[in-house]
Amino acid sequence: MAVYTQLSAEALAELIAHYDVGELVSAKGIAEGVSNSNWLIETYKEGGSSRFILTMYERRIDLADLPFFLGLLDHLSTSSAPVPRTIHDKEGAAWRNLDGKSVALIEFLPGISVDRPTPAQARNVGAVLAQMHAAAMDFPVRRANDLGADVSASVLAQCGSDALAKINPALPAAIDEAQRVAECWPHGLPRSIIHSDLFPDNVLMLGDEVSGLIDFYFACHDAMAYDLAVTHAAWSFADHGQDYRADIGQALIAGYESVRPLQPEEHAAMPVLAQGAAMRFISSRAQDWIETPADALVLKKDPMDFMRRFEFYRDGGSGIFT
Amino acid sequence: MAVYTQLSAEALAELIAHYDVGELVSAKGIAEGVSNSNWLIETYKEGGSSRFILTMYERRIDLADLPFFLGLLDHLSTSSAPVPRTIHDKEGAAWRNLDGKSVALIEFLPGISVDRPTPAQARNVGAVLAQMHAAAMDFPVRRANDLGADVSASVLAQCGSDALAKINPALPAAIDEAQRVAECWPHGLPRSIIHSDLFPDNVLMLGDEVSGLIDFYFACHDAMAYDLAVTHAAWSFADHGQDYRADIGQALIAGYESVRPLQPEEHAAMPVLAQGAAMRFISSRAQDWIETPADALVLKKDPMDFMRRFEFYRDGGSGIFT
Repeated sequence: MAVYTQLSAEALAELIAHYDVGELVSAKGIAEGVSNSNWLIETYKEGGSSRFILTMYERRIDLADLPFFLGLLDHLSTSSAPVPRTIHDKEGAAWRNLDGKSVALIEFLPGISVDRPTPAQARNVGAVLAQMHAAAMDFPVRRANDLGADVSASVLAQCGSDALAKINPALPAAIDEAQRVAECWPHGLPRSIIHSDLFPDNVLMLGDEVSGLIDFYFACHDAMAYDLAVTHAAWSFADHGQDYRADIGQALIAGYESVRPLQPEEHAAMPVLAQGAAMRFISSRAQDWIETPADALVLKKDPMDFMRRFEFYRDGGSGIFT
Repeated sequence: MAVYTQLSAEALAELIAHYDVGELVSAKGIAEGVSNSNWLIETYKEGGSSRFILTMYERRIDLADLPFFLGLLDHLSTSSAPVPRTIHDKEGAAWRNLDGKSVALIEFLPGISVDRPTPAQARNVGAVLAQMHAAAMDFPVRRANDLGADVSASVLAQCGSDALAKINPALPAAIDEAQRVAECWPHGLPRSIIHSDLFPDNVLMLGDEVSGLIDFYFACHDAMAYDLAVTHAAWSFADHGQDYRADIGQALIAGYESVRPLQPEEHAAMPVLAQGAAMRFISSRAQDWIETPADALVLKKDPMDFMRRFEFYRDGGSGIFT
C-alpha cells in the first residue's frame, strides 16, 4: 500500500499524451497494490471524462511477464468476466517506459471491496471466478506458477524453526506440514490461467454483483480447483482465521459450480488444495515477516492467520468439501 | 502522504448513508495530505455519479478548529475563488465521528498540481489568492496564526545550534536570523483569512486556470501580504531554492495586484514578510528532521531548500519587490 515514486503533473501529462484518451484533468496517487505504484487518472475528451488506473511496476514483477499480465487483461476484458482492459498507446504498445520504469494504463472499474462478504456476494464471486477460468482457457500465453506447494515447503524450510518460533510457537510445525502437502500434491487436474490471489481486496463489488476482478500479478497457468481453494481460504474465514464462515464457503463453491461443475478428481483434491493454498500464504507472510526490519513502518501480515486456516482444512473441519 | 487508517467498505458505506449523496460505488485511499487520511469517494444517485474527498483527521489538527476549517470552505465555495465546499450530513453536521475520529466529506474538484509552473499559471494563482482574501474578509470565525515569526524563532532556538549543524553547517545561522526577523516583524497590515500554505500541491489547475485551492488546514487570520509572501516563496524557486524564477515571482505578484493592489505599507513589508515565510518552513522542516527517526520510511524535507530562499530574500536578490 504505497506510492513508491513521485511523478510530476508535467511527466504524467506528457505520458498521457501518448494515449488517445484526451487531456489529463486529475491524477491522485492511490494507496493500492503492494508492489506497484498506482494513480487514479481522469482524462477529458470530446465532451466526456474517462478514468484509468496508471500502474508503475516497481518490484517483484518480472518485466518479462508484462506481455502475459497485460495481454491477459485484454483477453479477459472481452469475456463475460468483469476484468479491466489494458489501454494501448497510439503506437499500440501495452506499456511504456517512464523514468526508467514500465508503466501501463488500465481501465478503471467502479466498485468497492467488501471486508465481510455476504453469501450472495460470495456466490457471485465463485461464479465470476469460474467465468474467468473458462474465458482464460484459450489465452495463448503461459506463465508457470512460481509459488506452488514445493516452493512453500522450501521457503518455510529456509525460514527455519527458530525464526518461525519467534513469530509464533505454533509456526515451526508448518515446515513438515508443507513438505507433506507438497508430497501428496495432486497433478493432472484441469488447468487454465488462474488468478491465484483473489482476496476480497482484489474484487470490486456493486451491491451483490462483482463489478471487477483486479490485480492479476500472480496469475499463472495452474489447476483451476487450486484457484477455487485459494479463494475459499481468502474469503471464508473471519477473525484472523479463527472463525470459519460455512455459509460463505458453501456459497462460493456453489457459485463456482453453477458455471463450471468440479470434476470428481477436482472435488476429491479440494482438501489438499486448500491446505496448499493456506501454506502459500503462511510461507510468503513468514518470509516477509522475517525479512522486514522490526521498526519498518509497514504492516506485517501475521502468518498465523493462515496457519489457523491450514489446521482447519487439515483436520477436515465439518467435512467442508464433502 | 499516507493513509493512516484502514476503513472497511462496510464502514464507508454506512458513513456515506448519513449523507444525501446516493450510494457508494468506489473508494480509493489517496496518497495526499501530510496529517490526514484521505479517500477519493464516488457515489451514484438518480442517474449521475458524484465524487468527494473523505478526510479523516488524524493528528496535528486541533478538532476545536474544525468549525473554522470546514465553515471556511463553505464560505469560500460561494465566492469566485474555486474552493471545494463541505458536504453536510442529513442532520446538517459538517463532520461526523467514525472509529473515534472526526471525518468530513468535501467536494472533489478536478485539476492537477503543477511541478514547474508557467508565468501564466503563476499569474492566475496570484489572482485567485487575492480573490480568496477578498472573499474571506467577512468570514466571521477567527483562528490565530500559531506559526508566526516569533514561533519560528523559538522553534529554531529550541532545535539548537548543534542539532541544526548536523543537518547542514549553514543552518545554525537561522537562529539569530529568525530572531531578527521576529523583532522587525510588521504589525497592523491589512488582514483577512489567509491560506498560509499555498504550495503548488495545494493548487489544482486545468491548463493555465486554477480549478481549486485545497488543504486549508493552516488557514488563519493574518496579514494578506504575508500569504502572498508565502506563496511567492513556495512558487518562485526551482532546484531546491537555488534558482529564483523571476518571471514566476513577478507574474504571481502582478496577478495578485490585478485583483487587489498592495497598499504602500504592504509593498514596503514584502522583503521581511518573505524572509519570515522562509523561516516558517525552515523551522518546521528542521524540527521535523530532528524529531524523525533516522530510519523512518518517510521523506524528510530539507530545511536548506528554504534557507537558500531566505538568504536570497535577505540579500535583496535583484530587488525583487521593488
